[in-house]
Amino acid sequence: MGATVVDLSGAFRLRDAALYPKFYGFEHARPDLLEKAVYGLTEFAREELRGAKLIANPGCYPTSILVPIIPLLNAGLIADNQPIICDSKSGVTGAGKTPTATTHFVEVSESFKTYTLFRHRHAPEIAQGLGLPNESRAVIFTPHLLPINRGILSTIYVKLKDGVMRGDILKVWQETFADAPFVRVFAESQMPEIKFAANTPFCDIGCAIDEATGQTIIVSAEDNLLKGAASQALQNANIALGFDEGAGIR
Amino acid sequence: MGATVVDLSGAFRLRDAALYPKFYGFEHARPDLLEKAVYGLTEFAREELRGAKLIANPGCYPTSILVPIIPLLNAGLIADNQPIICDSKSGVTGAGKTPTATTHFVEVSESFKTYTLFRHRHAPEIAQGLGLPNESRAVIFTPHLLPINRGILSTIYVKLKDGVMRGDILKVWQETFADAPFVRVFAESQMPEIKFAANTPFCDIGCAIDEATGQTIIVSAEDNLLKGAASQALQNANIALGFDEGAGIR
Amino acid sequence: MGATVVDLSGAFRLRDAALYPKFYGFEHARPDLLEKAVYGLTEFAREELRGAKLIANPGCYPTSILVPIIPLLNAGLIADNQPIICDSKSGVTGAGKTPTATTHFVEVSESFKTYTLFRHRHAPEIAQGLGLPNESRAVIFTPHLLPINRGILSTIYVKLKDGVMRGDILKVWQETFADAPFVRVFAESQMPEIKFAANTPFCDIGCAIDEATGQTIIVSAEDNLLKGAASQALQNANIALGFDEGAGIR
Amino acid sequence: MGATVVDLSGAFRLRDAALYPKFYGFEHARPDLLEKAVYGLTEFAREELRGAKLIANPGCYPTSILVPIIPLLNAGLIADNQPIICDSKSGVTGAGKTPTATTHFVEVSESFKTYTLFRHRHAPEIAQGLGLPNESRAVIFTPHLLPINRGILSTIYVKLKDGVMRGDILKVWQETFADAPFVRVFAESQMPEIKFAANTPFCDIGCAIDEATGQTIIVSAEDNLLKGAASQALQNANIALGFDEGAGIR
Repeated sequence: MGATVVDLSGAFRLRDAALYPKFYGFEHARPDLLEKAVYGLTEFAREELRGAKLIANPGCYPTSILVPIIPLLNAGLIADNQPIICDSKSGVTGAGKTPTATTHFVEVSESFKTYTLFRHRHAPEIAQGLGLPNESRAVIFTPHLLPINRGILSTIYVKLKDGVMRGDILKVWQETFADAPFVRVFAESQMPEIKFAANTPFCDIGCAIDEATGQTIIVSAEDNLLKGAASQALQNANIALGFDEGAGIR
Repeated sequence: MGATVVDLSGAFRLRDAALYPKFYGFEHARPDLLEKAVYGLTEFAREELRGAKLIANPGCYPTSILVPIIPLLNAGLIADNQPIICDSKSGVTGAGKTPTATTHFVEVSESFKTYTLFRHRHAPEIAQGLGLPNESRAVIFTPHLLPINRGILSTIYVKLKDGVMRGDILKVWQETFADAPFVRVFAESQMPEIKFAANTPFCDIGCAIDEATGQTIIVSAEDNLLKGAASQALQNANIALGFDEGAGIR
Repeated sequence: MGATVVDLSGAFRLRDAALYPKFYGFEHARPDLLEKAVYGLTEFAREELRGAKLIANPGCYPTSILVPIIPLLNAGLIADNQPIICDSKSGVTGAGKTPTATTHFVEVSESFKTYTLFRHRHAPEIAQGLGLPNESRAVIFTPHLLPINRGILSTIYVKLKDGVMRGDILKVWQETFADAPFVRVFAESQMPEIKFAANTPFCDIGCAIDEATGQTIIVSAEDNLLKGAASQALQNANIALGFDEGAGIR
Repeated sequence: MGATVVDLSGAFRLRDAALYPKFYGFEHARPDLLEKAVYGLTEFAREELRGAKLIANPGCYPTSILVPIIPLLNAGLIADNQPIICDSKSGVTGAGKTPTATTHFVEVSESFKTYTLFRHRHAPEIAQGLGLPNESRAVIFTPHLLPINRGILSTIYVKLKDGVMRGDILKVWQETFADAPFVRVFAESQMPEIKFAANTPFCDIGCAIDEATGQTIIVSAEDNLLKGAASQALQNANIALGFDEGAGIR
């Protein structure tokens, strides 16, 4: 009754019940709850999280993409004549604990591959998070499997509107995340790397721009088990229950 | 006098001498030879290779991108209102033999990163190979460092012209490479993976298409030390000297 | 009837049927065949292999231990007042293809462990190969799991008889393996390493000696899938059938 | 004047100044201080550590060996007619931060090797810690390089005196380490593994015994950067300065 639920399963992430059969393989049993669930991308949901009873914790890949891109869309910096292309790479803990052919050491070690092209369940979650229609391919998402234990790095390609400069992106990020304890803006030439983010609760974000053309590469990194799962769940539970956002995390 | 040179250094890959200072860090001493050097992307240069005396062996990254994309451009399948985005990942042998902070085991293991965004010397080589202007960013290339010894996987994003289907791509590839012993077309749902291509002389190519929008993901894989270097050099030397293309390779 | 069988399963490696229930988990159905099976450690069984119909291909670990130690025992160089201690380390292909918790990438990567101390089925095979009683612990064998795909390295501790020098060991090995195409003696200070032996059909052997005390460290390396399995099976089949020992291997 | 020094360099670990030229490559400049330095293997030096001004922090390998073996020697459980054989394996952080051929990713990955057989500087430190003469080879130590970032596992072979059982070892350890917050005794069949100890301040110890013969395998694991270096330094500084041993560690 009084319990606060932070759901890490994915079952309440998509607001459109019709997407569950295709992407999750089941008919949603409680579509009435989808509207009520708060999508817990903490940095953008603090108001709704206060006192929330049902929180859908975001997917690991979507977190790495939505954190850097939402502020740029909100600020109107991104041109809309080119899809947002998200090329994401994850360590093997993202593939689950069950031993399968896919997670056998010999399959993974010394290799690298794409998987579920155009079909991953995080694709509609990313489109929803960006406020873009899933079917139009305004956003393209490709997951890859890295031969490491933990960590996600997303390389995201966007086109900026004419005249937008690197400093504009950094300024938007710095303002958006001024009070966000778990997002780190890389403002110099150093880009985020998995080794900086692994085993930490941070989402690291950086960018490189070809200012002549507005073509932009956004790089983000996080630990898929922490900011991509458990520590973000803690951020959400803390806010829902009125605790300090970082309690138990730092 | 009669020697045939297959140069793996990169010094003759770019035809425009003006690009060397920026991307290679030196003023070219023999710009007169740049015109004469044959760019040895074997599958597209067999005629020029016969009897050639100076062959510029292609870079490892460019090979993985040019092999699948050139046929699609030649066949007119790719729309021109969206850049060709090449997200490439390489094992550490691609970073050279010299011990540096970058190649230290502890730096690489359990990590993953981008490097030289918009500045890699293979970027103008890819643009030249595709016949696209380097400066217009009609092609974007991002290299990444994988924690493995050898192998490259490139994930390439293109937009097809209206009405082009997956079957059209496969048909173009199958025709182009019908007599190419070292290109393998993945025509089913299985995509190329580094483990299939590593320690082989093949460039493997596959694709997935969202036919509603024409958005297309091309996946290619090769061994950076073989098809990306030594075995392609052998292909080239064999053809230049009149031997069978596969001599000493299979 | 006329078929020659090279069995890689282990079912005919131990001559004592009584050991199967304990180490293999089954009562042997055909103990009568155990006497007839040739134990195919090629370098020591060439005579018996000619025309053999049932060949028990040795285990991967025993091969790495028996190849360097048998010649030293035969030559009477090893003191008998100290057990022969075999500390062996194998890549994950040695653990089989079935996905299990043990072979999950995340279990293996960035870790290292012992397993089946005093209970591995290769322990009695090593004792038998050395002509030592299994129960006396004249030989101790400890397997470990390495976070690599393929390769075995064994570090073997023996005590030499008084006055035996490093040169004596090397001389015995060089004579024993003078005509053995797949054993390489490391006669200088460089010791065998997995990277030299992996993906090759060789068993590499080397040694370091503290001549004041006769304490000796033998180091051997091989590819568990080749000299430890498939290429040794080919050596054996070749000899059994009258072909050149190296046919199809080099 | 009042400073307390915890030296991690190795320069004060050996009490015998004559060993420095051979094992460290320098003539010791202050042999007078060697007597005064406290060898900070915390669990065995708490009395001397209180108020100590110069503490020699133990080597990573010696810590993994001395922690389990000293109590067994002190309790008189180990037979003296067989050397103590220490087969130790370390991750690459143990090899230092300087990029060298030895630490290049491609050298280490998918490989495994021994190094400095009979010559490692930790060998005399282990002998000294066990109270055994270095030259008699009563202890043999072999280091190996694992393709992982951090962690040490030592497999140690000892012979017990007649009649000593596994329970006797466990009892000695449990009594010795009853108040030691950073030593964990594995009393069941599970042996220590690097993945349990990495990124923790613990030294984990376990054993398997062939009771018929008294042959015993001791397995220990620790993080070479923590219990093998920094966290043990903190334990030592804490005790020297009168703080709680675990302050700043847990």
